[in-house]
Amino acid sequence: MILTTYQTADGVGIGIKTERGILDVAAAVAATGANCPASADEVYAAGLAALPALAELADAATDAALYLDESDLTCAPVVPNPGKIICVGLNYRKHAEETGGEAPEFPILFSKFNNSLAAPNEDIPMQADWGKVDYESELGVVMGKTARNVTEAEALEYVLGYCNMNDFSERELQLRSGQWLLGKTLDKFLPIGPYVVTADDIADPQNLTIKGWFNGELRQNSNTADMIFSVAEVIAYASKVMTLDPGDIISTGTPEGVIMGMDPSVWMQPGDEYVVEVEGLGRLANRMVEA
Amino acid sequence: MILTTYQTADGVGIGIKTERGILDVAAAVAATGANCPASADEVYAAGLAALPALAELADAATDAALYLDESDLTCAPVVPNPGKIICVGLNYRKHAEETGGEAPEFPILFSKFNNSLAAPNEDIPMQADWGKVDYESELGVVMGKTARNVTEAEALEYVLGYCNMNDFSERELQLRSGQWLLGKTLDKFLPIGPYVVTADDIADPQNLTIKGWFNGELRQNSNTADMIFSVAEVIAYASKVMTLDPGDIISTGTPEGVIMGMDPSVWMQPGDEYVVEVEGLGRLANRMVEA
Repeated sequence: MILTTYQTADGVGIGIKTERGILDVAAAVAATGANCPASADEVYAAGLAALPALAELADAATDAALYLDESDLTCAPVVPNPGKIICVGLNYRKHAEETGGEAPEFPILFSKFNNSLAAPNEDIPMQADWGKVDYESELGVVMGKTARNVTEAEALEYVLGYCNMNDFSERELQLRSGQWLLGKTLDKFLPIGPYVVTADDIADPQNLTIKGWFNGELRQNSNTADMIFSVAEVIAYASKVMTLDPGDIISTGTPEGVIMGMDPSVWMQPGDEYVVEVEGLGRLANRMVEA
Repeated sequence: MILTTYQTADGVGIGIKTERGILDVAAAVAATGANCPASADEVYAAGLAALPALAELADAATDAALYLDESDLTCAPVVPNPGKIICVGLNYRKHAEETGGEAPEFPILFSKFNNSLAAPNEDIPMQADWGKVDYESELGVVMGKTARNVTEAEALEYVLGYCNMNDFSERELQLRSGQWLLGKTLDKFLPIGPYVVTADDIADPQNLTIKGWFNGELRQNSNTADMIFSVAEVIAYASKVMTLDPGDIISTGTPEGVIMGMDPSVWMQPGDEYVVEVEGLGRLANRMVEA
């Protein structure tokens, strides 16, 4: 199943992408009286438990008026209100090399706040004071069930699905204090979407091409097979410390090809666009603008 | 005004501490029909804008049945669902010295997730794998208004109030990767409360005694005057990078006296209790237990 979100008059709607168009879940629940989560927050809070009801809803929704034309919609961040945004640093072998570091012994986990969420096609404000802006194409993971102390072998059973993310970073703020948070959580520095593809539709999250284009030039071109710590390892590791909840998201690190690894580093400028495509997850495009 | 929260049959209630007892805000709103936020989430989302209505509610609520006996209540985390938990590292001069570091040039900001929230008097689970558990008495700040690019001079106008926090930390996890997040966000490692004392009742947040007792022994005994970056400076600095919202909380750093600064370091064990008292903000006591 493919989930997507979009702007509505009074907030954010969640839809299911089908051959007939985007099923407006709230409208379909209202029309059919189905016992099914209707809002994005309700769907992500239920996680995997919501999927059977959503599948039934899509089967039952025969009225063409319940389907929206995707090209008419304005995207929202595909997970609009995650409980946690966990990020993994230096998690691709060649990226660890380009930044001059060694492969880490344990996953390096840091975070962004929800102010950093942005939608596909949404402009990203560049603040005049912070000019060392870089992109990071990443595979995003959306949790589907409460996970505490899960093993690596069972970890993927807790995943709702996968999405594109761009972990935009301002390198001056990221590196000035040792704690990366500030350089990661500038407003709108985490575009996410346009789809969450549920885990049953992704054969192997460790064998997906991951690509990024800077103004049309292919800058990142790798595969999730190059990850140092797999999705399952990251979930198991994090769950040994903290309780993970449905709707939490994990950005699993970026492959080589970021500006920080180039000499000279020519940082992003207003007008520059970056496009992320993880295999099967659609296209995430965003442009820098002056704040 | 003094706000507090407590467990109810179906979640968390918010109350106002008065001479007559704790005013049950939801019950008072229901009884009087007042146009006033009734839940903790609604109060903190409204922030400073909620205070006039809450004050009117307390004046109008004359029925003794609307007041609860504080000693009958089980505390909740006083801000049960913050949008952000921002923490400041090495923000007291003598604490920076005891950890062997120099005073930082910029505020060191990191974060905890909401899984770390705990209530006053709530037991804190110690996980067998992570034994280097330390306490950190801190002054907590609760934001009251959306803040973006505010100046230091105006920053305190955006504060709803202040509370006790204990930024419990597991030093092995905190230091193993360079990113402190993991050692800070173990489940229930951020007790907070029991009160939010509104800013109008705190004459000067930079002149409050801050004390901490380990099993009754005074271990931390300082004053917020020793902060390197004042509350106003921290808010102004963070707001230059990210939008701060009502209900966001900031833990402003700990003074000297933590276990990490001792030689030898004798870490907390199951059964150990730590008590935090920032002047005028009540008493925050928590005990370690085996997970």
